[in-house]
Amino acid sequence: MKAARFHGRGDIRIDEVPDPVVGPGQVEVSVDWCGICGTDLHEFLEGPIFIPPPDAPHPITGETLPVVMGHEFAGVVSAVGSGVTGVAEGDRVAVEPYYVCGECVACAAGRYNVCRKLGFIGLAGRDGGFAERCVVDQRWVHPLGELSTDVGAIVEPLAVGYHAVRLSGVREGGTAAVFGAGPIGLVTAAALRARGVGRVIVVEPAKARKEKAEGVGVDHVLDPTGIDVPEAIRDLTGGGVDVAFECAGIDAVLAGAIGSVHPGGTVVNVAIWGHVPAVNMNDLVLSEVNVVGSLAYCGDHADTIALLRDGKVDAAPFITGRIGLEDLVEGGFRQLIEHKEENVKILVSPKDVIA
Amino acid sequence: MKAARFHGRGDIRIDEVPDPVVGPGQVEVSVDWCGICGTDLHEFLEGPIFIPPPDAPHPITGETLPVVMGHEFAGVVSAVGSGVTGVAEGDRVAVEPYYVCGECVACAAGRYNVCRKLGFIGLAGRDGGFAERCVVDQRWVHPLGELSTDVGAIVEPLAVGYHAVRLSGVREGGTAAVFGAGPIGLVTAAALRARGVGRVIVVEPAKARKEKAEGVGVDHVLDPTGIDVPEAIRDLTGGGVDVAFECAGIDAVLAGAIGSVHPGGTVVNVAIWGHVPAVNMNDLVLSEVNVVGSLAYCGDHADTIALLRDGKVDAAPFITGRIGLEDLVEGGFRQLIEHKEENVKILVSPKDVIA
Repeated sequence: MKAARFHGRGDIRIDEVPDPVVGPGQVEVSVDWCGICGTDLHEFLEGPIFIPPPDAPHPITGETLPVVMGHEFAGVVSAVGSGVTGVAEGDRVAVEPYYVCGECVACAAGRYNVCRKLGFIGLAGRDGGFAERCVVDQRWVHPLGELSTDVGAIVEPLAVGYHAVRLSGVREGGTAAVFGAGPIGLVTAAALRARGVGRVIVVEPAKARKEKAEGVGVDHVLDPTGIDVPEAIRDLTGGGVDVAFECAGIDAVLAGAIGSVHPGGTVVNVAIWGHVPAVNMNDLVLSEVNVVGSLAYCGDHADTIALLRDGKVDAAPFITGRIGLEDLVEGGFRQLIEHKEENVKILVSPKDVIA
Repeated sequence: MKAARFHGRGDIRIDEVPDPVVGPGQVEVSVDWCGICGTDLHEFLEGPIFIPPPDAPHPITGETLPVVMGHEFAGVVSAVGSGVTGVAEGDRVAVEPYYVCGECVACAAGRYNVCRKLGFIGLAGRDGGFAERCVVDQRWVHPLGELSTDVGAIVEPLAVGYHAVRLSGVREGGTAAVFGAGPIGLVTAAALRARGVGRVIVVEPAKARKEKAEGVGVDHVLDPTGIDVPEAIRDLTGGGVDVAFECAGIDAVLAGAIGSVHPGGTVVNVAIWGHVPAVNMNDLVLSEVNVVGSLAYCGDHADTIALLRDGKVDAAPFITGRIGLEDLVEGGFRQLIEHKEENVKILVSPKDVIA
C-alpha cells in the first residue's frame, strides 16, 4: 500500500510499504482523512524529535525511522481481528493514536497519556494515518456513528482542546483566555464554548488567525500588540479570568497568561516548548496561581465525538484544505509552512476522492 | 517605647518611638516574643525589598522607612479598643501580621493573603513585633489559650507550612517531599507529619539542617549531593511522591521537585525567588504536573494553633535561640547570617526576660 514516511529532516516520501496485518484484538482502518499536525511540521523542519532516530528505537514499537507519519485520522473499519467485539467492518471510526506500556506508574493510575514510554501512532513507528490502511489495537478505535470521516479527522485535535479544558477545572459560566489562535488555540476556544464557559477571550496578533477566532464564536479577540494584555483582561473580567491556556510556547505569552488569571486562578500549558523558558515564579506565588501541563488526551475521545455529533462544535471552520496523499509535501506541509496563518487543518486522503 | 526600626540596608536601630494608640476595633499586644524571619534577613542584607522606600509609600499604611520590623510574634493583650469583643486584657495571643485592602478581587474572594495591596505588619510600616507593644485590628489577633507565648511566636512560620500543605491537597496517608530544610522547609515537614501524611522525605545537603529534619521526625532525609534525586524518590515511593514543596528558590531544586512527583502530581512553590528561574515547561507537560504558588497563610492560624496545642507539632526544635531586643542585630541577625544552618528561629523579647 501507499504510505508517507519520514526518512529524515525535510525528507518525507510516498513509499510503497507492506500491507499491515490484523492480529487478534486489532482493527484495520481504511483511512479516509488524516490532518497535518504542527508536530508533523516540526518533525519535517527540525526533526527527528519524537520520531525515533536510527540509534534509539522506540521502547514500545522497537522501530526507528523511516516511519509512517500521520496521527489525526479517521476512516472505515476494513477488517477486524479475532476477539474484537462491538466494532464491525464498515463502521466509521476515529483513532486515538497511542502506544502505551500499560505497566508504568502513569498507566497504572489510568493516566496513559503520560505513560513513561508513550509513543504516537504516526510518529513512533509501525502504522500511521498518512497511509491507505492502519492497524491498531481495538482500545484505540472510537466509533463515529453518523459523523462523516472528514469531521472524524478533527476529533484528535479537538480532543487536545477538550482535555486541556477538562484539566483546567473551569466551570460553566466561568471565564477563560486562550493565548494563541493557531490550531490548538482554536480547538481549545471551541471546547470552552462547547462547555458553556461564559466568556472566552482569545489573544492573537496575526490578522488571519484573529478572524479564525471570531469564526469560532469567542467573545473577545485581543490583539496583544501595544497593549498590556493582563491589564486588558482584568478590565474585561473584573479582576482576571478563571483559567488561561498557553498555546504558543513563548516566554512573554506564558507570563501574560499567568498575569491574566485572578488570584488562585489556573494556567494550562498546552504548548510543547522548543526551549526552556524563563518563568517568574514570584508571579505564581504572589497570586497563588496554579500552572498545570496538559498533554494530548486521555479518555476524552467519546466526549469529543459527542460535541461534534451534537453540534456543540462545528468542524467546518477548522478544515481549510483537502488534498490527496501524493500531494502531502507540496500541497500540505509546504502550504502550511508558507501560509501557516491562513490555514488551520489541511486534510489528506489516500483515496481517489480528489481529482 | 523601644522598637527596632529598619532605616536602610544594613541599618537596623533600637529606637525610642511613640507609644501606639489603640483605636476602635483594635487590640494592643504587649509583645513577649518575636522570631526573626528569612525575609527580615533579606531586608537587612539586600533591602529595602518589601519595606517601602522613601519614594514609594505603602498603599495601605502610607508609610516609608524607617519602619518597625518583626512579624512572627505573640504576646499578651494589654488594652482593647471600643467595640472589641471576645478578647480581653491578659489573653495570650498570636498575631496574623497583615494589612489588606478589603476591596480587591483577592480580598473579595476571601484570598486576602494575595491582596493586591498586601502589606505585612513589621515590614510595611506602622507597628511591628520587634517592639514593646503593637496595635492591630482585632481581626488579626488569634487566642493562644494555654499555649505559652514563645510557642506562640512559632505560630506564624508554622502557618506558612500549614497553608502550603493545605494548598497541596495532599491526603492522609499520602507521600510528600520537601526540598530544603531551612526554617520554612522544616515547618512544612512538621505540618505534613501533623496532617498524617504517610511518608515525608526531606532533601537537604547541609549537615546541620539534615539533623534538624531528622528531629522533626520525617521518614527519609536525602542528601542530594551526587545522586539523582527524582530517581531516588521514585525508587522510594514506587513512582514519585504525591506532592513536593520547593522551599529553596533554586532552579535545579525546582526541576528536582517537578521530577519527583508522580504523573499528575503537585509541586507547591513556597520559596520567594530572588531571580527569574529557567523552568523546563515540557517537564510539566509530559507528566501533567501541577505547580502552584503558596504565599504565607489565609485563615490558617486557628488550625495551626490547634496543631501546637494538641501536641501534633512540637515547637521546641524550632527555637534555637532567645535574645533581648537590644541584642537584635548582633545576637540575632548576624548570628543567623553567619550560622544559618545551625539555627532555625531565634526569638527576640523586648522584656527583661533575659539577664
